[in-house]
Amino acid sequence: MTVTFADIQQAARRIEPFAHRTPVITNESLDQRVGAQAYLKCENMQKVGAFKFRGACNAVFSLSDEEAKHGVVTHSSGNHAQALALAARLRGIPAYIVMPENAPQVKKDAVAGYGGRITFCAPTLEAREGTMERIRLDTRATVVHPYNDERVIAGQGTAALELLDTIPDLDAVIAPVGGGGLLSGTSIAAKGLKPGVRVIAGEPELADDAYRSMQEGRIVPSLDPKTIADGLLTSLGTLTFPILRERVEQIVTVSEQGIIEAMKFVWERAKIVIEPSAAVAVAVLWEGRMDLTGLKVGVILSGGNVDLNKLPWQS
Amino acid sequence: MTVTFADIQQAARRIEPFAHRTPVITNESLDQRVGAQAYLKCENMQKVGAFKFRGACNAVFSLSDEEAKHGVVTHSSGNHAQALALAARLRGIPAYIVMPENAPQVKKDAVAGYGGRITFCAPTLEAREGTMERIRLDTRATVVHPYNDERVIAGQGTAALELLDTIPDLDAVIAPVGGGGLLSGTSIAAKGLKPGVRVIAGEPELADDAYRSMQEGRIVPSLDPKTIADGLLTSLGTLTFPILRERVEQIVTVSEQGIIEAMKFVWERAKIVIEPSAAVAVAVLWEGRMDLTGLKVGVILSGGNVDLNKLPWQS
Repeated sequence: MTVTFADIQQAARRIEPFAHRTPVITNESLDQRVGAQAYLKCENMQKVGAFKFRGACNAVFSLSDEEAKHGVVTHSSGNHAQALALAARLRGIPAYIVMPENAPQVKKDAVAGYGGRITFCAPTLEAREGTMERIRLDTRATVVHPYNDERVIAGQGTAALELLDTIPDLDAVIAPVGGGGLLSGTSIAAKGLKPGVRVIAGEPELADDAYRSMQEGRIVPSLDPKTIADGLLTSLGTLTFPILRERVEQIVTVSEQGIIEAMKFVWERAKIVIEPSAAVAVAVLWEGRMDLTGLKVGVILSGGNVDLNKLPWQS
Repeated sequence: MTVTFADIQQAARRIEPFAHRTPVITNESLDQRVGAQAYLKCENMQKVGAFKFRGACNAVFSLSDEEAKHGVVTHSSGNHAQALALAARLRGIPAYIVMPENAPQVKKDAVAGYGGRITFCAPTLEAREGTMERIRLDTRATVVHPYNDERVIAGQGTAALELLDTIPDLDAVIAPVGGGGLLSGTSIAAKGLKPGVRVIAGEPELADDAYRSMQEGRIVPSLDPKTIADGLLTSLGTLTFPILRERVEQIVTVSEQGIIEAMKFVWERAKIVIEPSAAVAVAVLWEGRMDLTGLKVGVILSGGNVDLNKLPWQS
């Protein structure tokens, strides 16, 4: 069982009443700097400030009424938690969110603000999974994993679907890779619309488990990575890894300095707020480790949730 | 002699090959917070990062070939200097820019980057005007004032022209006021397209010379104001003041805290980078000192040039 292009088309119809069709912008300064024509798909302007809303929304609205009435559950301290809480609220069902007790207050507030029912637990994977399982048994809620879930992958693919609908003659599409949900959906959508398009991933050098997984032909776990791109810390999933092996041309690693420089350049020149994980995709062009000279390249800007009090270029 | 609606229409045609038609965006969180429907005209995404390019471009391309060959000259340390340098480069003529020697390096670099020929002078108005006059006599360049110039005012009005073309049923339009060039052009354009629309200005409390000028019926000079909105420090001009008296319903002053809060909210929620002067217009809605409840309100986001190393909400 995997995700098909038809699943993504169906997801697009399903989430259309709820999700933003985000803008695609261009910037001459960036193009001059990187020597390519970049088309930036602004998922930072998506609801909850990240593409994650697409997958969560598709998952929640895929449920039967019988399933839905028990709600959904996940463990996450990031954008997925907010996305699932909002999607559940839009369907009028409960979202149970397991968060580590040491999660930043701003993230707790955001999830609560979208109506998520938060359960705090110790900050270990065991505690998170154990707590989630207990809630699932108590409530009969449906688990919605942040990326290792067909419905989520199909939802994430709708961003690339819109991008290629807007700019059909792209030569390549770049997305960042963490757990691989966005990248999987992007690869299925992009090649479904245009079989010859190249799908490229950006990954931090300091969290290069996806790169190594592709090299070694097995899922290499991500062990306590230290990158600034805090949306890309997780390991690939059993669903996403096979999709990436089949459909992604190349995973390009980028330096922390490249991520920060690309992020600041986009803020300064394109005047949009993107988070470090989004800048990872831009950094593939910025650092030029792969030759994309003269090509039309779509870039999925995954999100824009950053702490404005503490920016990475400030010491 | 003043500026007419036809002048603005002509300016729009003249600058169309060079200027961006900037996006108009909306944000649900902002609308909920302020109780109105706000349509944000993103001049932060204009060339050089500010509406100033419109006026400079119209001025430069209004010149006869005979005038143009001698170039243009201005004194400015802000967005107008960059705008004029770029517009002149696009026409292939020299731009002589007089800047105070203590201007920030980043601004000197930006003007030089657009090909402006910089002359430094002492940081006084006398030195600036004296230096400019000497260059004018030496080169026969045409002076392009940052706001007290019909061609500049007509160019600035094209932003509101586009805004009302995109959203024709606006009830009101808000623009920030410094020297009054943007506000003058906005008022002529908006009322030309829709006579009943209300034109409202935002002005910092700490630089309320335009407010007081309207109260007193004479141009009250702006004396060493201390606001964070560093694009709004200047006094009204002899051309702009009469236009504002005739066409602007109200000048609403806003607090420094309101400017900073509105600015940060737009960055966080709309994911765009705006400068404090742009946030002044948003702060009119944010602080609610004027009742615009339920109305459709256009807001001219004047620019997005900020020092990303030093943000106003950071102590």
